[in-house]
Amino acid sequence: MEKVHIGHHISQQFNEELEDIRTRMLAMGGLVEQQLADALKALTEGDTELAERVITGDYRVNAMEVSIDEECNRVLARRQPAASDLRLVVAVIKTITDLERIGDQAERVARMSLRLTRSNADRRPYSSLRNLGERVRQQLHDTLDAYARMDTEAAVQIARADLQIDRDYDALSRELITFMMEDPRTITWALDVMWSARALERIGDHARNICEYLIYLVKGKDVRHVSLEQMEAEARK
Amino acid sequence: MEKVHIGHHISQQFNEELEDIRTRMLAMGGLVEQQLADALKALTEGDTELAERVITGDYRVNAMEVSIDEECNRVLARRQPAASDLRLVVAVIKTITDLERIGDQAERVARMSLRLTRSNADRRPYSSLRNLGERVRQQLHDTLDAYARMDTEAAVQIARADLQIDRDYDALSRELITFMMEDPRTITWALDVMWSARALERIGDHARNICEYLIYLVKGKDVRHVSLEQMEAEARK
Repeated sequence: MEKVHIGHHISQQFNEELEDIRTRMLAMGGLVEQQLADALKALTEGDTELAERVITGDYRVNAMEVSIDEECNRVLARRQPAASDLRLVVAVIKTITDLERIGDQAERVARMSLRLTRSNADRRPYSSLRNLGERVRQQLHDTLDAYARMDTEAAVQIARADLQIDRDYDALSRELITFMMEDPRTITWALDVMWSARALERIGDHARNICEYLIYLVKGKDVRHVSLEQMEAEARK
Repeated sequence: MEKVHIGHHISQQFNEELEDIRTRMLAMGGLVEQQLADALKALTEGDTELAERVITGDYRVNAMEVSIDEECNRVLARRQPAASDLRLVVAVIKTITDLERIGDQAERVARMSLRLTRSNADRRPYSSLRNLGERVRQQLHDTLDAYARMDTEAAVQIARADLQIDRDYDALSRELITFMMEDPRTITWALDVMWSARALERIGDHARNICEYLIYLVKGKDVRHVSLEQMEAEARK
């Protein structure tokens, strides 16, 4: 696997700036992952205090996005990076947008968990929701890990795993529709579960986007809108 | 209102490249707007052929995104733009991502319209859905128009109008929940209407993002995650 080496510039300062951008992006990823883990814990354990903490903590994700974005723009303007340095900066600009939206979805899950905890409803579909949530959290973790190691083959595997998340989400939706039809009193509650599942499924899509940016960064190839097979071929080149 | 002037470079070629990026981004916006208008027409008139055309046409939106993105990267690498030129390129890179996702949502509405046309269900909530769709289409149109004119005050008005879209969406959701509760046989159908409404509401959010990029481009200020009042103050500066 080809590696992108950071730290080959005569200007030590420039090396540090690029490394700093990447480190801060990964730190933002770590914060977003924690927000998601906390939102899922709040949902599963009915922990309203933790849910409130996720909701009020979203501003930190937003602040990191704005600050990393500014740093990227400063580097573009002052250092005029080329080749893989430029790809790093552009990939980070795109990645933090998706990370910020993952943060929004985690906040949404936390909000739903507050409503669900208050409703005292049937908890049967929660195990499916918990499984979906665990899969999505793992996917986000693997994505950040692949980014840290610049591992494009891992990125393809993660994109492939997103298909399973979509299937899990579809199965959960059908389960919830059956609940609603059997007992219309469950409708409001089942819709809240459905929105939570939808938020998790969207996080899977964002993680896949980030994997695509990683392949672009390392390989210089835009693999959006291509099949998994083409993506895999590019990642291995 | 301050204007960003394109075409002040000694290199005529560079002027043309910047103008070309902007023109192509607006053309992509025009295509996405047409996709949305067609999806809404297909939904309202039960025109399955038109819906199919929107679905198969989404690849054109994707292709434009990839091609404009490549052009932006080429300009960043070769021209090393600074100041407002750099902001233009970065704003376009972000804008086309949102435009592409609006295209995906339009495709989603088209898919839902196929299912809804086949279901022969109660058409009462369609007038609310049509109103929401028309409002969102107008919002997207106004956004592209503001971009073409570099009009930041219009951008703030559009961001403000997004609040009304959210309210319309909430009202429609409540209407649909009532339907489902009164007659559980409508659940599958009502969920399809709800997903369509959700897709439209998301388009409103993307249009708002684009307005924020426009203010960044013209004013150099990042107005994401700030209140409408702060956004307005920045747009008027």
